[in-house]
Amino acid sequence: MPNTKPIYDTICLIGLGLIGSSIGHAVKRGGLAKHISGYARSEETRQIAKKIGFVDSIHDSAASAAQGADLIIICAPVGAMESITKEIAPVLKAGATMTDVGSVKQAVIAAIEPHLPDNVNFVPAHPIAGSEKSGPESGFAELFQDRWCILTPVESASIESVELLEKFWKALGSSVEVMSAKHHDSVLAITSHLPHLIAYSIVSTASDLEDVTQSEVIKFSAGGFRDFTRIAASDPTMWRDVFLTNKEAVLEMLGRFSEDLSALQRSIRWSDGDALFDLFTRSKETRNNIIEAGQDTDAPDFGRGHISEKE
Amino acid sequence: MPNTKPIYDTICLIGLGLIGSSIGHAVKRGGLAKHISGYARSEETRQIAKKIGFVDSIHDSAASAAQGADLIIICAPVGAMESITKEIAPVLKAGATMTDVGSVKQAVIAAIEPHLPDNVNFVPAHPIAGSEKSGPESGFAELFQDRWCILTPVESASIESVELLEKFWKALGSSVEVMSAKHHDSVLAITSHLPHLIAYSIVSTASDLEDVTQSEVIKFSAGGFRDFTRIAASDPTMWRDVFLTNKEAVLEMLGRFSEDLSALQRSIRWSDGDALFDLFTRSKETRNNIIEAGQDTDAPDFGRGHISEKE
Repeated sequence: MPNTKPIYDTICLIGLGLIGSSIGHAVKRGGLAKHISGYARSEETRQIAKKIGFVDSIHDSAASAAQGADLIIICAPVGAMESITKEIAPVLKAGATMTDVGSVKQAVIAAIEPHLPDNVNFVPAHPIAGSEKSGPESGFAELFQDRWCILTPVESASIESVELLEKFWKALGSSVEVMSAKHHDSVLAITSHLPHLIAYSIVSTASDLEDVTQSEVIKFSAGGFRDFTRIAASDPTMWRDVFLTNKEAVLEMLGRFSEDLSALQRSIRWSDGDALFDLFTRSKETRNNIIEAGQDTDAPDFGRGHISEKE
Repeated sequence: MPNTKPIYDTICLIGLGLIGSSIGHAVKRGGLAKHISGYARSEETRQIAKKIGFVDSIHDSAASAAQGADLIIICAPVGAMESITKEIAPVLKAGATMTDVGSVKQAVIAAIEPHLPDNVNFVPAHPIAGSEKSGPESGFAELFQDRWCILTPVESASIESVELLEKFWKALGSSVEVMSAKHHDSVLAITSHLPHLIAYSIVSTASDLEDVTQSEVIKFSAGGFRDFTRIAASDPTMWRDVFLTNKEAVLEMLGRFSEDLSALQRSIRWSDGDALFDLFTRSKETRNNIIEAGQDTDAPDFGRGHISEKE
């Protein structure tokens, strides 16, 4: 549960969207830093952040925000990380910890590590938490509660810096696991990247039909389709970068998925009811395991209200 | 909103799972019938239904439950409908309305219509509502609230019988649309059957990995995978029957989906960031349309709680 003592003196957030703003709220709630400095590329985002108040100081450049910070968290799309690192590298404090929240880790390391000074500890991180909403107004302190955060420290990072960042993420409410960047990228390819890719793809298929109108797709989406559209509404820039930078692992998982789908297609074509029934029965178990592990709600229909809530 | 006058004197529910029990609760709440008779194949289900009390009389056979009823609703898997119809046909009251709640409609008509007497009106129906939960204890009166119900009356059904059933579904809280059985099966193939098939398939893919453990799949499922597992936890018998009986439309939609997925795969392989970005941007619009149409909740993350709720 939330800590109440500062873990870092100054934390710098570069990027103030859903994740950046949620970290800001959570750090303030827990008193985890004496000062939070923030930077976002867009002037509008900076103004909104200032108004909401989840950072203590807003800066006009990433370098100005990062100067003197003990922990720098890059909360920007993977494609923007290299240029941000180049910009802030000269002003980083000796002994500072550099981290990020990117959904891929090998590509993040390739983009950032070469540009960092030797006296900075680099501990890439990935909180497995999110929502289909984006922007500085969508953040909230509880986003990381009861979720997992994966750390993939580079070899040169000090043990102390890894332990301190672990303590930080636990104070945000998360459980922490440390693994290699390569393994992270395989695990996330199946648990996150492939589901998003499939969701985007079926939404696209549904948009291109002749005999079924778009209004029918929308009207009757409660039959299952609407569940897919939630994650297909996630930030397009972030997801473009994920697929471009975790290409190999995603293509590998996609290949396996296509094989399995073909097998299922064959079972349908040949009316193999037993094969279908067995597969569907096994799927139920996976769902039960996820609920037992506290990674989803057991409320029917995700707990969507049926009456009172404005649906 | 719920009616308060009986629409039918006696309603017979054959099959008392999620849908049957929900209809029972909703009919009682609205006072839509003077008497509800019920039958389920399993003795255990009959006992539970009796105890919960969403039917007025429980019968040991479908024929006994259906005798004298004004509206008979078959809430059983599609594969069981033909034998049920054969059993009850001899005792059906002249002028009664026969309906069902099956997820496919051409196959239901093929299974039921040949066995019905001429003096019974046959109005197949499909409420687009459901949940991953099944069984007599999972039903609740609000399941059909603000959802759509599709009617696909056969030619010989009287206009009055169609209008009365429409009134009945509106009293359960649904909007009603009338269309041909063939068109229904196309629309549902994309909005419901294909999403379920894909969800089952990706859960299967995730179960067969060597380098990623099952516990990792479960732990990190909040990255997107868990959304797919909800519908992959639906009743296996029902879904086996759906795929066996709506084979053509499902295979057609699956073929289109596979083409689209291959195009996306190609965009990733060739690092075509612009194509990915455009597609992801369009998907966001579909989500917005679904929310505007009241077919899903706009709460981030489906409104799953982040703290207080037992997740």
